[in-house]
Amino acid sequence: MQLRDLVNDNPAHLVLLVIDGLGGYADARQDSELEAATTPNLDQLAAEAACGLTLPAGPGVTVGSGPGHLALFGYDPLEYDLGRGLLSAIGLGVELRPGDVAARGNLALLDDDGRVTDRRAGRIDDEPARAIVGHLQQQVRLDEVEVTFEHVSEHRVLLVLHGDGLVPQVEDLDPQTTGLPPREPTATSPEGERLAMVLRQLDRAIREALSDQAADTVLLRGFDTLHELPSMQERFGLRPATVATYPMYRGVAQLVGMDALPKVGSLAEQIELMAANWDNYDYLFAHEKAADRAGHDGDRDAKIAAIEAVDAVIPDLVALGPDVLAVTADHSAPTQLKAHSWHPVPTLLWGEKVGRDDVRVFGERACATGLLGHLRTQDLLPLMLASAGRLEKYGA
Amino acid sequence: MQLRDLVNDNPAHLVLLVIDGLGGYADARQDSELEAATTPNLDQLAAEAACGLTLPAGPGVTVGSGPGHLALFGYDPLEYDLGRGLLSAIGLGVELRPGDVAARGNLALLDDDGRVTDRRAGRIDDEPARAIVGHLQQQVRLDEVEVTFEHVSEHRVLLVLHGDGLVPQVEDLDPQTTGLPPREPTATSPEGERLAMVLRQLDRAIREALSDQAADTVLLRGFDTLHELPSMQERFGLRPATVATYPMYRGVAQLVGMDALPKVGSLAEQIELMAANWDNYDYLFAHEKAADRAGHDGDRDAKIAAIEAVDAVIPDLVALGPDVLAVTADHSAPTQLKAHSWHPVPTLLWGEKVGRDDVRVFGERACATGLLGHLRTQDLLPLMLASAGRLEKYGA
Repeated sequence: MQLRDLVNDNPAHLVLLVIDGLGGYADARQDSELEAATTPNLDQLAAEAACGLTLPAGPGVTVGSGPGHLALFGYDPLEYDLGRGLLSAIGLGVELRPGDVAARGNLALLDDDGRVTDRRAGRIDDEPARAIVGHLQQQVRLDEVEVTFEHVSEHRVLLVLHGDGLVPQVEDLDPQTTGLPPREPTATSPEGERLAMVLRQLDRAIREALSDQAADTVLLRGFDTLHELPSMQERFGLRPATVATYPMYRGVAQLVGMDALPKVGSLAEQIELMAANWDNYDYLFAHEKAADRAGHDGDRDAKIAAIEAVDAVIPDLVALGPDVLAVTADHSAPTQLKAHSWHPVPTLLWGEKVGRDDVRVFGERACATGLLGHLRTQDLLPLMLASAGRLEKYGA
Repeated sequence: MQLRDLVNDNPAHLVLLVIDGLGGYADARQDSELEAATTPNLDQLAAEAACGLTLPAGPGVTVGSGPGHLALFGYDPLEYDLGRGLLSAIGLGVELRPGDVAARGNLALLDDDGRVTDRRAGRIDDEPARAIVGHLQQQVRLDEVEVTFEHVSEHRVLLVLHGDGLVPQVEDLDPQTTGLPPREPTATSPEGERLAMVLRQLDRAIREALSDQAADTVLLRGFDTLHELPSMQERFGLRPATVATYPMYRGVAQLVGMDALPKVGSLAEQIELMAANWDNYDYLFAHEKAADRAGHDGDRDAKIAAIEAVDAVIPDLVALGPDVLAVTADHSAPTQLKAHSWHPVPTLLWGEKVGRDDVRVFGERACATGLLGHLRTQDLLPLMLASAGRLEKYGA
């Protein structure tokens, strides 16, 4: 039995609100950011909802935004392994065409014997790095293959190759350490031979173009192509759309078949956009970034303020009249760690048929006692479908 | 490691009481039926036991009785996918022999061009439908294949074919929509060719027999045969029996190797029957239907009364002296939904070595905080075995 065998065409509306990086943890000194925040509206939802803790990729695994969101959309993020190149392209809003190959690169320094001396080109700043990437884009030309370089941040670069017969079955070129030369392009299958040959040409062209620059080469890794994921339409019978504003989240949503509605700004505007498109879709995904950014910055006050700002617009979200509403995150981002983390993500599922538990406030420790228990993030979507009356019975 | 490698021959007694359709959910207006019921004996058991919430086929999936019970008996219901035909036969008490093929059918209406105009023969009532099925049973004869029709309810019919070489690898004939003709019998493998041929003969015979009746054909789907499931004896080293009274539950129990003890009536009589057979078996499965029926009817008072009636005989069950007692359900059946549902099932596991948690009342929200946590229904049996001292250590 597969879930897709059970989905029906009930048009009930599902809404997913991702408060990026929401989760954290209480420690010896203080409550988590969510627990410390004043969130009357989220608490009210929690009191009416079933709560739990979600794990994007299993116990102990910290995920990036790509796998975190795939899980929220009902996809096993360990099965659908999106490469760094692809995610990087998505994050920059670079639209890949089928057959394109993307890779992540580092601007790096080499010694006279061609060995890597610095994998980050002297921790180069954004501005000079952007100039170098612009220079590469002007100078590097290959026969029959179109080359695109995009600056990501500091030493980080995105490469996209467009041409016939490029199959990303090659090893990484980045040796991941200093003292060794970049690795020779090597195919891991006969299909990868053409790409390996192109990479040998590319390596020469890059070194030539950089001969008078503050970086000597680009260390490439994570070769990847556009994945053909089964769509949410196909798997779950949904008509999905996103009102997210950042390229990364719009891009991952599009990978699973969501329409990306016109870019707006604040979460309040995202909610207005949902209202305007309510009849055209039955699954709507909104995304608020500020809590994650504050988590990365280790700025506890900013993260608390970001959560409270989301709380303020919750009534507008409820006023849309979703049949089922899920509020959660793609991953935790505790300010103690200044990074994404593996800590389970507080999650609430709200709707008439969901049922309610005894959780009265929205927070990590409260959610641990909720009716949803600890669950895989990817299991949230089936619960949303079921709660919306969109899954038929299995077996007689 | 497989569980069967760890089972020993300790004769400790395991008892499973299924309160069919037990689970429900609290909503904005009221507690669940179990929470609202007055259940001093179940509460006492819960206080002495470890509690949790069980999921028959994973988050969001609503199961029928067949998969729900397979899970309770320790089988993965997604792996052992019993077809509708087989479950329908089991539910009617029609005993399938190895090699028989069973299918579900709908009495349906066709237009002059043979296209389906009504998949339920005008929502035909039981009485005229039963007459039509009796007529089919008299009229339809095939060479070398014995044909049995049984009326299920309204337009629903069971077909059983008995003959040599019938392998149910054929597509459904029911087009699942009006405006199309029934599909041509089509084998999905060379082994299914003989059945496809028989179905072409059958189709002609059915239409001929129904030419003067209030239905024109039978739309068949879910072709299935008796599954050879590994027995509970083989998998778990048990000597299992059931005292259940309804054909569906006796049938599924027999599929996994249980003896079906003589049919009695009430749960109190089932308990007496267990007592009388105590020394011949070490796994005994009792089944009480009333809560599920009330759930389907949406009759909250009746469901509460049904649960309270079970509570009244709990002391008799405990008096049998089981080493381990599990009280749970095959699925939830909230009166709000008038149907089976995906909501997790309150479950208690009682016995000297089980351990106890802080759960003091038997109910959904209380069980959410119990020691068993959220678990797959199929994991209950290993816990019962372990608690009875019937599983050896794995590894040194």
